[in-house]
Amino acid sequence: MVLLIHHPVSPHARKVRLQMSEKKMLFILREEEPWKLSDDVYKLNPAGELPIFLNDGVVICGNYAISEYLEEVSKEVQLIFGDVKQKAEIRRLCEWFDNKFYQEVYRNLVVEKVHKRFAKGSAPDSKILKAGLNNLNFHMEYTDFLLERRKWLAGDDISLADLSAAANFSILDYLGDVPWDEFKNTKIWYSKMKSRPSFKDILKDNIRGILPAKHYMNLDF
Amino acid sequence: MVLLIHHPVSPHARKVRLQMSEKKMLFILREEEPWKLSDDVYKLNPAGELPIFLNDGVVICGNYAISEYLEEVSKEVQLIFGDVKQKAEIRRLCEWFDNKFYQEVYRNLVVEKVHKRFAKGSAPDSKILKAGLNNLNFHMEYTDFLLERRKWLAGDDISLADLSAAANFSILDYLGDVPWDEFKNTKIWYSKMKSRPSFKDILKDNIRGILPAKHYMNLDF
Repeated sequence: MVLLIHHPVSPHARKVRLQMSEKKMLFILREEEPWKLSDDVYKLNPAGELPIFLNDGVVICGNYAISEYLEEVSKEVQLIFGDVKQKAEIRRLCEWFDNKFYQEVYRNLVVEKVHKRFAKGSAPDSKILKAGLNNLNFHMEYTDFLLERRKWLAGDDISLADLSAAANFSILDYLGDVPWDEFKNTKIWYSKMKSRPSFKDILKDNIRGILPAKHYMNLDF
Repeated sequence: MVLLIHHPVSPHARKVRLQMSEKKMLFILREEEPWKLSDDVYKLNPAGELPIFLNDGVVICGNYAISEYLEEVSKEVQLIFGDVKQKAEIRRLCEWFDNKFYQEVYRNLVVEKVHKRFAKGSAPDSKILKAGLNNLNFHMEYTDFLLERRKWLAGDDISLADLSAAANFSILDYLGDVPWDEFKNTKIWYSKMKSRPSFKDILKDNIRGILPAKHYMNLDF
């Protein structure tokens, strides 16, 4: 049985959970707080990052390595698919959300509100939050632009890019930070994502000490 | 003919150049300054990041997408190879250097010294430089640990992980920031990397306005 070491506040872990659920893989979760990782976690992953995938003595670390690994070992449902150009487009957008969105939005909003509180007991810096919300607007202009032209972020079918984006949005949505009404296409897309069976567990996530925004679990907002 | 839009200060561009050279692909380079990207670059890559790969109307953006694309279209020399576990190890270390090393070392040293100077004309902050050098020591302890046990970073053969790491180290080395003598295994490994034909062009790189450290082009330091 697969064990995934994760935390509900980790977008990379949410992405991998969504990917395994879309592939109908069975797995169990173990929670570790990213701001207070145990020595065991560092032994498994010297990078000190979540998620960590364990299965029958195989340990895979890093969201890029895990996602590509899952595509190779479980081929029935493919989330990186198509010709080389289509695959490149899926990976470009994964990198966009896993790294660019993470640095420009997640760090300014989630690290500032959640990690800082639990790691240091300190309050968020309003300037950093404001920068994060501005950046979020820029990113949502881009998702809206893409979704005006495409059914899913990278093309006609749901792909790893959608999971990566939705994983990030779902944490911001938990905190009530997403201006959905200003970005209609992204709102419709996220509501489709939310309705997928793979999303059920994500909507039950609970970040200890922080209640989710009222609409978090609501499928039609 | 492949055109790569790059800059000698971009580790992700250096990685892709090394990867194409190892694969004996022919390509031409066009330089764009990362701190003053033209509108053309934003049109090609809305993320505003280098490198950008162009070939016969195909545009690939993002170092993750480009590297995986190159592995798929040019299979004779493989840089992500082996069984699923070996591939995951290569990708884990690519992610380590492309993202973790980039955030913890590159941003503190290269962005601080080079980007800031050309973008804003301002001097580096000594606290940030110090943090970057401390982080660099931590990363080199890890490369030394790996290279004590392995011939190359991810195992017995040279892989994309070595290119990704060497791309980063080569920029720091240009600036004279790498404490090679304290990390013997990493020094030997880098000297092997430097001697490869694929590295020749990297050693001729010139960051306008900044002279390379004396030993930068010296194959045996």
